[in-house]
Order: sequence, then C-alpha cells, then structure tokens
Amino acid sequence: MDQNVEFTHCYYLTAGEAGAQSGMPLTLLVQRVIEIATEHANALGIGYATLACHGIAWVLSKISIEMKRYPRINEDYCLTTWIESYNRRFCDRCFAVTGGDGSVIGYIRTMWTAIDVKRRCVADLTAFEQEAFPVSDRPCPIEKTPRLASVGPLASVQDYTFRYCDIDFNRHVNSVRYLALVLNHWTMEHFDNNTIRRIDIAYHHECYFGETVQLRVATNGHTSDCEITRDGTRAVALRIHWEARS
Amino acid sequence: MDQNVEFTHCYYLTAGEAGAQSGMPLTLLVQRVIEIATEHANALGIGYATLACHGIAWVLSKISIEMKRYPRINEDYCLTTWIESYNRRFCDRCFAVTGGDGSVIGYIRTMWTAIDVKRRCVADLTAFEQEAFPVSDRPCPIEKTPRLASVGPLASVQDYTFRYCDIDFNRHVNSVRYLALVLNHWTMEHFDNNTIRRIDIAYHHECYFGETVQLRVATNGHTSDCEITRDGTRAVALRIHWEARS
Repeated sequence: MDQNVEFTHCYYLTAGEAGAQSGMPLTLLVQRVIEIATEHANALGIGYATLACHGIAWVLSKISIEMKRYPRINEDYCLTTWIESYNRRFCDRCFAVTGGDGSVIGYIRTMWTAIDVKRRCVADLTAFEQEAFPVSDRPCPIEKTPRLASVGPLASVQDYTFRYCDIDFNRHVNSVRYLALVLNHWTMEHFDNNTIRRIDIAYHHECYFGETVQLRVATNGHTSDCEITRDGTRAVALRIHWEARS
Repeated sequence: MDQNVEFTHCYYLTAGEAGAQSGMPLTLLVQRVIEIATEHANALGIGYATLACHGIAWVLSKISIEMKRYPRINEDYCLTTWIESYNRRFCDRCFAVTGGDGSVIGYIRTMWTAIDVKRRCVADLTAFEQEAFPVSDRPCPIEKTPRLASVGPLASVQDYTFRYCDIDFNRHVNSVRYLALVLNHWTMEHFDNNTIRRIDIAYHHECYFGETVQLRVATNGHTSDCEITRDGTRAVALRIHWEARS
C-alpha cells in the first residue's frame, strides 16, 4: 500500500485546550480535521501551495462527526484521514479518531470543494494528476451528511456580527467560528448535562467581516436544527444530536 | 546542560490557521505559548497532572509578546521555552520564536501563578522539588511586562457576555478569548494597515460563563490601552503597540 493512502497525526489534549467539561472541544476537533486534511493534501502535492499557483483553494463544504467519546485532558489521540472518493470538483475525505488505548472513538466524514479564489465559484481539478488522489477502500461506518431541512417558524432567533478573529486567510469567516457561534447558543448547564453524539454541518455561502447574520435554533427532543442566515439566505446549516451525559 | 532546561516544539502554519492578513494570528501564538509551557511543565513533572493531585493549577498571570514578524502560511516555526526564575508562588517563563530560516523573529515573557483550585487563591509551591525548576541563564531581550495604567475617561466602551466556547477546563474564561474580545474591537482595514509589534497582557481577575464585561479602549498614537472590567473591577488589562505595515 502506498504510504500516502492514509495519513495520521497524533496529538495529546493539553489542559489549556480542554473545554469546560474537561474534554476536547468540538471546535478544536474540527480545527484538527482541517489541519490534517491540509497536511495530507500537502503531502500528496494537492495542498494549499500547489493549488494557490492555479488560483484554486480547498473549501470545506460538509462535515459530519460521530463520537463515542471525546479525548480527555492529557490523553494521546490520533486522527487518521483517507480519501474515499473524488471527482473534478469535490473530494470526500474520511477520518478515524483513536483514543489513548488505540481504540476508535469516533469517525468523521467531510466533503471538500475546490473553488476558484478570484471568481469565488467551483473550480475544475481535471488538470491535477489522478495519482495525487489515492483512494482508500477503508470503510467509514457513519452515515453521510444528510440534506438539512429548513428550520421552522418556531425557532429562536438571535443576531451576530462577524469580527476580526472570525476571519481566515481567504478573508471569509473561518469554518470553526460558525460552529462556535451555534454552540454559544446553549447554557453551561446544558453542556454539563448533555454531550454531542453527532453533528452535521453544511456550508452553503461564505460570510464576511462586519456582516450581521441570524442564528435560528429549533430543538425537538434530542435533536437541534440550526441555521445561520444572512438576508434570509442560508449560509450554514447544522444538526446536532445530543446525548444525556451518564 | 540538562536537556530539560530548554524545551522546543516546532510547528508549521497551515493555511486554515492563518489570519486575514495571511500570517499567524496573535490568538494562536498565545495558544501555542500556553501549550508548550504546559508541555515543558509536564516534562519536568510540574505539569497539570502532578499539580492537580495537590489541588493546584498553573494560571497565566502576565504575558508580553514582541514580534519582528509573524510566521507565514506553510512556514515552519519553533517555540523554545525556558524558566528564567521562580519562587514558591510564581514562575517566570520566557520563549523565543524562530522562523523557517532559523532566525529569531520574536520573544515572549510570561508569568505563571500557582493557584489553589478550590479556594481560588495563590498556592504554595514549596512542597515541589527545586530541581524540577531548572533555571536557564539564556537572556530574553525584551522588557518585562510593565504596570498597565487605568484607561482614561475618553475610552470607547462596549459590552460583551461570555459564552460556552469562551470557557476552559478551569470553568473560567480562556486566556485567549479575552485577547480575541479586544482584537475584535478594530476593523479589518485597521489590521490591513497595521501589525502588532508588541502586546502586554495582565490577567487580574477571572471571569465566568454568562458574565457581562465592559471593554474600554483608548488609543493614543501607536498605542492602545485596553481594559476589560466587570462591575467596575479590572479583570484584564492590555497594551498594544501598533506598527504601520510596510
């Protein structure tokens, strides 16, 4: 097997990185996912530097995370990533998260889109060599990101304006900051009593510095449907499956 | 020389981590400082796990950062840390940041306080072996954190309420989030035209989930004095020295 088919990066969770419930914050997990996807793409020669020469950048379009549990303070953990499939516009990339004892504690599915940086539209990857996208047949035993329905009229609504620290090098809002905006909707007590078993996120439209968006949240049982809209247009949709902490 | 006197961790700046000006965000730099201070303390046996057994935790009290430039996208960079001095209550820890070409691009000074986690007051480190605190005579050629004066009556004032993602495992506001709150005060245009040459931060009182604080900012020439207060009491003070981008 080509050693680049799978790519692994191991970390450990420092105390300073841990969230209020002493586990790995979901925002950090998404950050790590983006990080090792980038590292793997760089190693394959289809990373930031190569694509930038062609005016192309990878953008995270969808992510679904399903965790049995989250890494704990001072625990070693690893993320392993592989490409499940690709075509000239998209790349499906999966991840397994292993805990300190080596067992898999979660799986993640992502879809990446190649965008034309100047025109802000989908780019064409045909020019890149097929061999640079080594597909693995390792299964990723969680469901694909579903279509996320609109949030109904009974949702709670709150405004948020994006600031400097929300913006990334593409000059749009960092993928992780949308998630933080949504998680900030709930109280500490809610997080003390509930953990996120699964989350699905679909990124539809980019937001920019200074824009004010509406966050809409509707919870039904253990499921929360969330939407970030700007002028009535969906920018990001999320679905959270909560599980009571034991 | 004991190999633990200095501790180095190398990274590279991924595209996804970079800020809007394509450099390393100051918030990430502070996060890395906390991270490798933690790693060094762990390696010395005076880290989170050991201190937690004694009901003690390290808290960052002061930090001063002076950068010639910040790491760029895809640049390798290293942080090296060493203990400059300590007593039974505090530990002064310095850092050098080296860029991809191996030259030093910045220095950082920090002061850490050992606090009694339950009583939330300063703890006593006398019980820990002196040998665990190997002092280095490597110089840190930047000025110590100065006393930061009160922000005058002409300051701009805005409110902010701390949310879930602002909180760390100690159940107080994460050191980095105070900084993000302050940086979010300025426009994108300001950051396009100016870079932070030096920043001093003094952490006085912890803030908690749901608390509303006032951010006060007064700028005079290239210096901005900032204060985060809660009910009129200073929680955090910051001074930023701006430099026009060339």
